[in-house]
Amino acid sequence: MIDLYTDSSPNGFKATIALEELALPYRLHHVKIDDGAHRRPEFLALNPHGRIPVITDDDTGVTLFESAAILFYLADKTGRLLPQGTKARWEAIKWLQFHAASMGPLLGQRVHFEMFAEEKLPAAVERYRRLTEEAFSTLDARLAGVSWLAGDEYSVADIATFGWTHIAAICGFSFSHHRNLFRWHERVAERPAVQRGIALPAPATGP
Amino acid sequence: MIDLYTDSSPNGFKATIALEELALPYRLHHVKIDDGAHRRPEFLALNPHGRIPVITDDDTGVTLFESAAILFYLADKTGRLLPQGTKARWEAIKWLQFHAASMGPLLGQRVHFEMFAEEKLPAAVERYRRLTEEAFSTLDARLAGVSWLAGDEYSVADIATFGWTHIAAICGFSFSHHRNLFRWHERVAERPAVQRGIALPAPATGP
Ligand SMILES: N[C@@H](CCC(=O)N[C@@H](CS)C(=O)NCC(=O)O)C(=O)O
Ligand SMILES: N[C@@H](CCC(=O)N[C@@H](CS)C(=O)NCC(=O)O)C(=O)O
Repeated sequence: MIDLYTDSSPNGFKATIALEELALPYRLHHVKIDDGAHRRPEFLALNPHGRIPVITDDDTGVTLFESAAILFYLADKTGRLLPQGTKARWEAIKWLQFHAASMGPLLGQRVHFEMFAEEKLPAAVERYRRLTEEAFSTLDARLAGVSWLAGDEYSVADIATFGWTHIAAICGFSFSHHRNLFRWHERVAERPAVQRGIALPAPATGP
Repeated sequence: MIDLYTDSSPNGFKATIALEELALPYRLHHVKIDDGAHRRPEFLALNPHGRIPVITDDDTGVTLFESAAILFYLADKTGRLLPQGTKARWEAIKWLQFHAASMGPLLGQRVHFEMFAEEKLPAAVERYRRLTEEAFSTLDARLAGVSWLAGDEYSVADIATFGWTHIAAICGFSFSHHRNLFRWHERVAERPAVQRGIALPAPATGP
């Protein structure tokens, strides 16, 4: 049985969406970041970095943090959400990594400087707008003529990327001028498992 | 045969170190970022995001960007640099991802604001010092009592993390007060393949 420790957030929704897509049984633990629950010793024992999401799997004894590692683990455990063919499989892994390293962290910085920073720093706001626009453009170009990031098959790369486009939309970081990306986003959003995943442990609220 | 497109940089060295460790034959292509070579059409055809490193493998037809995906591909191709046992394997993947998403991108932002930004923004400098210190502390705690990030075996997680501790050291971002991390860094640095990897296509110079 899998235990998931998470909150309503971009990285958290990746895990809930994947578990819902796979219809794996799991126990959901709400780690309330606003209450500082991610800094308590019992949570730091699971992730010393103090970030959600985390899973533990008592079938294998594995404890994992980092959302991309969790997605990859769930795909590996079930043989689903990752294409079998060599080229499509590496496409999925490439875009999963693109999301994890080149898109998610920069959107995280954009949220900070554009919405939460006490001191408004125009140069930092401009920097992260430009860098996240570049990531959106790269994804838009990839999605010209294919339905999903890996090609024909919906995969963990789509789930990861949607975790952040969902929050980008809520934050008003518009990407509708990237038509392929925008249509892809709407396609993912329609999936019943995605609708369930983004409401667990609770829907995200605007800033 | 593998073709590697790279420059002297933290993300590039991960690929050269791994190829040197594995003693795989490869052709090295120097993509000079300072000359804008990463923005030319022939390079954008390999990575539309315009970033190094990229590999192509004509044995499989795979083209990959994102250094963590490349490391994982090389480990998968050779059955080396990633432990076989379930728990150690997922430890390696977890720390590879920690590096890719929670350490590398933040060190990249620290380099920008601390060393290159035209306008000095103390709040941004302070933010990335704090966040990279948190990443160093997390790694330091992990390395208490184990030799390598995955436990007993040197893996792609060590190579990835070293790519950035090497550059952190060159930039004067001190981490020697994190004794486990510092000793681990020295242990990795001593490896002959690492010494070769950080000199390809040329050694990194200070800022
Ligand atoms: N790279 C990590 C990032 C995890 C992360 O930053 N999680 C946020 C919520 S989306 C968090 O726990 N924040 C609490 C904090 O930063 O103190 C992943 O993909 O899992
Ligand atoms: N997440 C990517 C980052 C790649 C990256 O940022 N590479 C840098 C060199 S270390 C680059 O190509 N920079 C050129 C630019 O930003 O224009 C990876 O791990 O491969």
